[in-house]
Amino acid sequence: MKQPTAAIIIIGNEILSGRTQDVNVQYIARGLVEHGIRLCEVRFIPDDETIIVETVNLLRADNDYVFTTGGIGPTHDDITSASVAKALGLELTIHPEAYALLEEFYAQRAQPFNDARRRMAMTPEGASLIANPLSAAPGFIIDNVYVMAGIPNVMQKMFDSVIPTLSGSFPIHSRSVTAALIEGDIADDLARLQHHYPDVEIGSYPSIRGEMLCVSIVIRSHNVSLLDEVEIKAIDLATSYGGNLLEN
Amino acid sequence: MKQPTAAIIIIGNEILSGRTQDVNVQYIARGLVEHGIRLCEVRFIPDDETIIVETVNLLRADNDYVFTTGGIGPTHDDITSASVAKALGLELTIHPEAYALLEEFYAQRAQPFNDARRRMAMTPEGASLIANPLSAAPGFIIDNVYVMAGIPNVMQKMFDSVIPTLSGSFPIHSRSVTAALIEGDIADDLARLQHHYPDVEIGSYPSIRGEMLCVSIVIRSHNVSLLDEVEIKAIDLATSYGGNLLEN
Repeated sequence: MKQPTAAIIIIGNEILSGRTQDVNVQYIARGLVEHGIRLCEVRFIPDDETIIVETVNLLRADNDYVFTTGGIGPTHDDITSASVAKALGLELTIHPEAYALLEEFYAQRAQPFNDARRRMAMTPEGASLIANPLSAAPGFIIDNVYVMAGIPNVMQKMFDSVIPTLSGSFPIHSRSVTAALIEGDIADDLARLQHHYPDVEIGSYPSIRGEMLCVSIVIRSHNVSLLDEVEIKAIDLATSYGGNLLEN
Repeated sequence: MKQPTAAIIIIGNEILSGRTQDVNVQYIARGLVEHGIRLCEVRFIPDDETIIVETVNLLRADNDYVFTTGGIGPTHDDITSASVAKALGLELTIHPEAYALLEEFYAQRAQPFNDARRRMAMTPEGASLIANPLSAAPGFIIDNVYVMAGIPNVMQKMFDSVIPTLSGSFPIHSRSVTAALIEGDIADDLARLQHHYPDVEIGSYPSIRGEMLCVSIVIRSHNVSLLDEVEIKAIDLATSYGGNLLEN
């Protein structure tokens, strides 16, 4: 069984200008890993129709799933829905279910359901909706493209609702061994360990805790018993260099 | 004068697996904006030679500057330097200045200057170094590609040292008007404002503060007097909807 793959497109000038710190990639990435889907690529692109069209078409051809965040609000710079429709060669039309949802949401709050808000009911023809329990305006799924909001708490609710519907595979499990060590001391031995176990992926991630240099050795594999075996070797390796084991 | 452009490549499986939250994009993005360089695209890619080679070559052809972060440490999964050399069709060789720096750094600390650490002295032929005042192992510049560490505090020192050497243009200035408003209420008027001022870029960014819905109207332009004019209009617009102005 081939592992399904995914790509993320983060859409928005506010990210590329450094105004906003993206936190959506990590949330989606973690959910995909747990579900056994490999995240192959992430791109941050501006609110530009030509670029959105090109990027969506490239990445949906290469991956089983494409997730977009951002650009589905009511303002003039929210052009994701129209751009995704164009990418797929579909009409952008009023989605009756989305329209009804939004109409009711604004009626209940006695807020005007104006032209700007009506735009949020538009999706490419044939899209199915992704519910937004926080502020009504839905995301949508069309073909293998999942179009979600950019605001993190809304995006998270949307993503949580779609992840159980995706085809995963045997999930990848991981073990981490973190120790007060200097990466360069253990690097040669770690390379030997990786060479000896080609079917696990061994990563080495240095960090600084307070003023203490640490290394996390992260071991990933589909095969849990192999993982257990390599974890023991990694612990031996770390402690042989006098590294105190730390919480991951 | 054409505005210079840049792209960022974030290299590392730890980012794509969701293990690590990237914070380097925002730091680089802010520095570029202040310096008058337009960040056009960001890609997150895995530690995979073929993908690194292809991505570096694509983005360096399209942009004045390419910045990479990650994959220049001493371990087996640090393949950025070798991959960038391959992308440019250059030999990966010992950089004498880097070698001397590292040799002295480890001698002073009585740490072994082993094979793994020697790898950190390797750069593509003809590269110039980017100093690392924290842990010695340098980044490097080759052609229009700036190869930096992934650890944020090291990356920041490296980026701070190169930014003054880049050709900027007239910087883009910005004004923000934040108010307790609902985006959908002001969207139609905001679209009219954008239409009236095609030479400024007007963005609208909703957020939730506590339980209060807010909108930040962000106005960007090279032209400060135009910016002042549009800022006043944006304030008028926000207050005409009863929105209390807030700190940005």
